[in-house]
Amino acid sequence: MPELQTGGHQGYLRIATEEAFAPPELIRAYERILDRDDVDPGFESLMGFYLRSKSERAQAVFRRLQDLGAERLADMDARGIDRQVIAVTGPGTQILDRDSGVAMSELINDRLAEACQRHPDRFTGMAACAPQDPAHAAKEIERAVSKLGMRAVVINSHTHGEYLSDPKFWPIFEAAEALDVAIYLHPQTPPRDMVGPMLEAGLDGAIFGFGVETGFHALRIITSGAFDRFPKLQIVLGHMGEALPYWMYRLDYMHNAGVRSNRYPFMKPLKKEKVSNYLRENFYITNSGVAWEPAIRFAQEQIGVDRVLYAMDYPYQCPPEEVGILDAMSLPPQVKKMFFQTNAERLFKLA
Amino acid sequence: MPELQTGGHQGYLRIATEEAFAPPELIRAYERILDRDDVDPGFESLMGFYLRSKSERAQAVFRRLQDLGAERLADMDARGIDRQVIAVTGPGTQILDRDSGVAMSELINDRLAEACQRHPDRFTGMAACAPQDPAHAAKEIERAVSKLGMRAVVINSHTHGEYLSDPKFWPIFEAAEALDVAIYLHPQTPPRDMVGPMLEAGLDGAIFGFGVETGFHALRIITSGAFDRFPKLQIVLGHMGEALPYWMYRLDYMHNAGVRSNRYPFMKPLKKEKVSNYLRENFYITNSGVAWEPAIRFAQEQIGVDRVLYAMDYPYQCPPEEVGILDAMSLPPQVKKMFFQTNAERLFKLA
Repeated sequence: MPELQTGGHQGYLRIATEEAFAPPELIRAYERILDRDDVDPGFESLMGFYLRSKSERAQAVFRRLQDLGAERLADMDARGIDRQVIAVTGPGTQILDRDSGVAMSELINDRLAEACQRHPDRFTGMAACAPQDPAHAAKEIERAVSKLGMRAVVINSHTHGEYLSDPKFWPIFEAAEALDVAIYLHPQTPPRDMVGPMLEAGLDGAIFGFGVETGFHALRIITSGAFDRFPKLQIVLGHMGEALPYWMYRLDYMHNAGVRSNRYPFMKPLKKEKVSNYLRENFYITNSGVAWEPAIRFAQEQIGVDRVLYAMDYPYQCPPEEVGILDAMSLPPQVKKMFFQTNAERLFKLA
Repeated sequence: MPELQTGGHQGYLRIATEEAFAPPELIRAYERILDRDDVDPGFESLMGFYLRSKSERAQAVFRRLQDLGAERLADMDARGIDRQVIAVTGPGTQILDRDSGVAMSELINDRLAEACQRHPDRFTGMAACAPQDPAHAAKEIERAVSKLGMRAVVINSHTHGEYLSDPKFWPIFEAAEALDVAIYLHPQTPPRDMVGPMLEAGLDGAIFGFGVETGFHALRIITSGAFDRFPKLQIVLGHMGEALPYWMYRLDYMHNAGVRSNRYPFMKPLKKEKVSNYLRENFYITNSGVAWEPAIRFAQEQIGVDRVLYAMDYPYQCPPEEVGILDAMSLPPQVKKMFFQTNAERLFKLA
């Protein structure tokens, strides 16, 4: 593998778009939640591992998550990453109670904005918010975008088992659409009433449960009609679209069959008729966690080369070899540049 | 679209491999379960719809499910289907109590065997069993294959929330391996402790919940080490592999990361090292519900052209147009013949 360098020598800059951090205050809040008797079981599995396991993997993630300085920059240099688009790690503020979530979202945004101001050529930030308080969330998104220079919003999937398909959360969509910033719908473990069998099998996390949870969330948003109310809203999904591109035919067929037969009285026809129309017009997809050309090409062919972006998933998955694998993809040079650089520049208004 | 005919005029016979039926006795048992206060919520959503909705879709499915004669044959003729490989519809016997499940599995197999004997050139059967009683299930599989001529076994995913990854069910694997018949792992709705949020959103059925449930089940079987114990066992997944082919890179990466860091002490290294090795060597995939060349080609490229088979999903999804779409795929003629005919002939020992 050739040495990885920043600076665009390979014909494009590498902009990694699903990169995580956690301020120490959030880690301490997680510690307190982990000590509770009624801790959410998916959270306990996830953060109990990353905060308390003595394994090399957990300790490396724990340390790197909290750094927005020298170690992160050195890791980026060693992997040839020119820029990270950074968001608070899952589940972000969304495991906290309402008031703590509100306060933490402000702290996260202030902290991330400071780091981005220190390293404007290397870091871009996504706004955190606390959906527990939709009105505050909308205001905090406005502050983070207008005052702090954030270029997107991150939502770490469900909030105490509730989903953005519920209109009570739509002030968040309204703010994102009005400010013209995308929402990155990032995984967390499924909620209490979905995660049980997955925990039993050790499949609740990134291996399977994350994808179920986040694909489910995206599909709920589509079938709720939210995009008919907010037609310019754009949502970013990692992990090659959480398998939704591969499911498109079945989603279209079964949504249509269900609506026509009125199986669920609350499930109504959509303006664009097909679920896949929304996937193609209201979603961007990153390859976080999936350094694999066949799935990337599939998504490019189905969703569009202008809607598939590079992501590393630092610090959870960051082997330099994966950058080499992706550099070596047999895509036309202009498509590779879209993938690594220009799609992100357009979506996050970087250029 | 050219008129659809049986007989192989297009260069191959069409063998549909995930086709469903339900004897009236099973329907009546379902009716009694639907009347209970403690009915399984996923079952209530699924069979409550198909047995009680006045919609055209539900009524057509309800009628066709119970026919193993003239209507089914006429539907096959009109769609150019030379042969159906037929199994009891999900959830089969698996929603019944143990004794009822045992008795019902014998009735189902007798009834299906009679139909196959009446129409040996059109129907092939898959054995039902009641995993509620693993020892009986193994014996019934033996009877159905050796005495009744069944060519595979159907398992309609979980049994009262339990999965075949549990070694108590492994007499079923042992019997299937010894008899050299594949197990078709067919969807049903997710169990009570997983289905809640999906029901709330109307996404518990074929549109989403089925795939989650069945992909999850297959992954549990792989990670349990069952294939290391039964290396010749073959499992068939419908619906383009329930998205597992698209997830392969992430499954491999995260399984390896989880095992190395001992996140779940019960999750052990696998002999073949990667989850994807099992998907490529112990699984067949059908396109039931997915008349879509891009996903079919993806699975052929990743799992192998000799492991991807045609299925219609009668009577749940049987528009003749889908046969025309698949006839028109831009695959080499020999690959199309493998897909529609010869892979099924080999797997189900038809030729």
